[in-house]
Amino acid sequence: MSLELSRVCAAISPSPTLAIDSKAKAMRAEGRDVISFCAGEPDFMTPQHIRTAAHEALDMGLTKYTPSAGTLELRKAICHKLLIDNDLSYVPAQIIVSNGAKFSVFAALRAIINPGDEILIPSPCWVSYPEMVKIAGGVPVLVPGDPKKSFVTEAADLAPYITEKTKALILNSPNNPNGCIWNRRQLKEIADLAVARGFYVVSDEIYEKLIYDGEEHVSIASLGEQIYKQTIVINGVSKAYAMTGWRIGYAAAPLEIAKAMNALQSQVASGSNSIAQYASVKALTSKGRGPAHLKMMRDAYDERRMHIVMRINRIKGVHCTMPKGAFYVMMDISKLFGLYDGDVEITDSMTFAQQLLESVDVAVVPGSAFYSEGYCRLSYATSMEEIDRGIDRIEKYIKRLTGSKGDDEDAFNEDYDF
Amino acid sequence: MSLELSRVCAAISPSPTLAIDSKAKAMRAEGRDVISFCAGEPDFMTPQHIRTAAHEALDMGLTKYTPSAGTLELRKAICHKLLIDNDLSYVPAQIIVSNGAKFSVFAALRAIINPGDEILIPSPCWVSYPEMVKIAGGVPVLVPGDPKKSFVTEAADLAPYITEKTKALILNSPNNPNGCIWNRRQLKEIADLAVARGFYVVSDEIYEKLIYDGEEHVSIASLGEQIYKQTIVINGVSKAYAMTGWRIGYAAAPLEIAKAMNALQSQVASGSNSIAQYASVKALTSKGRGPAHLKMMRDAYDERRMHIVMRINRIKGVHCTMPKGAFYVMMDISKLFGLYDGDVEITDSMTFAQQLLESVDVAVVPGSAFYSEGYCRLSYATSMEEIDRGIDRIEKYIKRLTGSKGDDEDAFNEDYDF
Repeated sequence: MSLELSRVCAAISPSPTLAIDSKAKAMRAEGRDVISFCAGEPDFMTPQHIRTAAHEALDMGLTKYTPSAGTLELRKAICHKLLIDNDLSYVPAQIIVSNGAKFSVFAALRAIINPGDEILIPSPCWVSYPEMVKIAGGVPVLVPGDPKKSFVTEAADLAPYITEKTKALILNSPNNPNGCIWNRRQLKEIADLAVARGFYVVSDEIYEKLIYDGEEHVSIASLGEQIYKQTIVINGVSKAYAMTGWRIGYAAAPLEIAKAMNALQSQVASGSNSIAQYASVKALTSKGRGPAHLKMMRDAYDERRMHIVMRINRIKGVHCTMPKGAFYVMMDISKLFGLYDGDVEITDSMTFAQQLLESVDVAVVPGSAFYSEGYCRLSYATSMEEIDRGIDRIEKYIKRLTGSKGDDEDAFNEDYDF
Repeated sequence: MSLELSRVCAAISPSPTLAIDSKAKAMRAEGRDVISFCAGEPDFMTPQHIRTAAHEALDMGLTKYTPSAGTLELRKAICHKLLIDNDLSYVPAQIIVSNGAKFSVFAALRAIINPGDEILIPSPCWVSYPEMVKIAGGVPVLVPGDPKKSFVTEAADLAPYITEKTKALILNSPNNPNGCIWNRRQLKEIADLAVARGFYVVSDEIYEKLIYDGEEHVSIASLGEQIYKQTIVINGVSKAYAMTGWRIGYAAAPLEIAKAMNALQSQVASGSNSIAQYASVKALTSKGRGPAHLKMMRDAYDERRMHIVMRINRIKGVHCTMPKGAFYVMMDISKLFGLYDGDVEITDSMTFAQQLLESVDVAVVPGSAFYSEGYCRLSYATSMEEIDRGIDRIEKYIKRLTGSKGDDEDAFNEDYDF
């Protein structure tokens, strides 16, 4: 008998964003005017017509258990959405609604991983993927993306990492943290590879609707009969409908996988909030106000995206590429390493983020949180005014960094060729 | 590379209640007048003042992410409840709010189990406990309760099952499925055993407020400094406030365990529904209407409890003891085994439940679902009229069973000495 805790849980990496986040909150509590670029959610409120549906659900007394996999009405609405938006044909038995798409990803991984199975994860990647793989008993295999290709990892880049133990690839397009998008050709090649080598694809498409420059979102599951059978599509209402707090995500999967996921969910979590499920039906099926609200949000993000990229690229010493989706930019800060903020040397993205927060009250997420050292992630899910105020401060802060490079202006004038 | 699914997930026992439940639903869809005693939730709607709080949350736009462990406001309300109701002192950092108490139990087990650890589970037990233990990598060790002691498993009953690998005991008082309650003396002895032998107690107290005959609910964590350090208390708003669909459960634990649980939850699920969290604060803190509504529900359950037990014990061939908590009775049907419904022999609780449903349109949960063969569980979270109509049918059904015992009236007249 021993009171030792789970070694797997003890080994879960604490989120590197937490340190910054706690500090930012403590500073705000002290009355300091902190500007945050850390948000991982829309700054918009859930649209009125969806909140109205929730009021209706409350008045109807929809306050009881739903089926573990979600209400039939919601699963039908999801099937319809997948057919219309993604050219994917599913029946409700293949849909599992969960407490947020995060749990959908975990349940998908848990349903396919046996001990020691390897899961390919193109990096930069969302902080939770590698941890989820480990909790499910698998081994995360990070495949570093090439900044010159906007970090889009192609089939040829993945191939060298495939072994006898490769069980799945986690694909996240549009991507958090860097906003890149895999195009149809790139996805088709990955699909062919997955079919040829026999591994699953967990395709997290949560940012599907936030996409710019006329780009097209393609679901890899739609690219052939066999890849459909090897793909688990993840999506949810959080980002498209500004419903992060409602916690409604879903997975669409081959029937056997959906059954395994539901068996797991029914024993460890049960269904999601009944009122949120009712409201999500409205979110997915509203033909008038839904698309209009989405367009309004996307247009706002698009304008901010252009603006923040323009502003960042005017600052000497840092750089970012134009993201094509989601609401994040990755700012390359590697040229600042070795410079000093007073006595403190900027050695990595974490020291930069910490010093930036301490010195000029601006919070950004260090790239190390996304296995992407040399960068910081800035969310533009915030107002234009805040973007300008925040970037003003960052600009001033970088100007006053000192050191060998700081003394030599030309060090900042190398060309970025990506 | 192989497309084999997770062996752990493939091995999850499908809920034996599902077969009955699906069949009952299919029969209802055909227009048959099915009476169900299967409900695992209050038949009452969530009280108005709690739904009003949810309306407020929607109007205030509380539609964004909450902290993974739950809002500070809700965790403070939970601390206050645990202090007042249970004589337990916790700070908010020790509280983890989850998508239902089911996930709270799972997260607790996942946070303490290492591969091969044994978890003691007094049976009859809730269907999900053994499955959760297996999913978390542990080994469920069922400790069969004695019907003569109303299935209350005491320290002396547990002791022979303790080994070097015993990591925890799952305690569920008031109990689902049999409504028994562990008293202070019994809990103190179990606490002493847990401290002496060094194992955790996961104390699922979700039915705390549904307790009758002036019985007292005692939380084992309140019985000493050391047992407090070895206990994870599980509770939620579902049963006490008729809020099953809202999915708000919580755990209170020693800080190190709470941290491990939150690390897990933050990576695989994140926080619970923001609107439900706001409404749950109201549920836990309302001083007027909250307790009044609870008393109304409890009085109704109490009346139904007396009635259903009286009615069952008037039926020759079956028997039940008076439950002291929750809203279930376990009906002993073992004397019916060997009898025939037409050509079909009643061999176990599953054949009884299936035949009962098919023959007289009454749904009950077979005891095998709770590792309690020889019994069926009847929920009295349904109206008095439905109870009478359903029991009338059960009575007629049992009367018309035929076979050696059926021909010999005296076979049913043995005394039940418990």
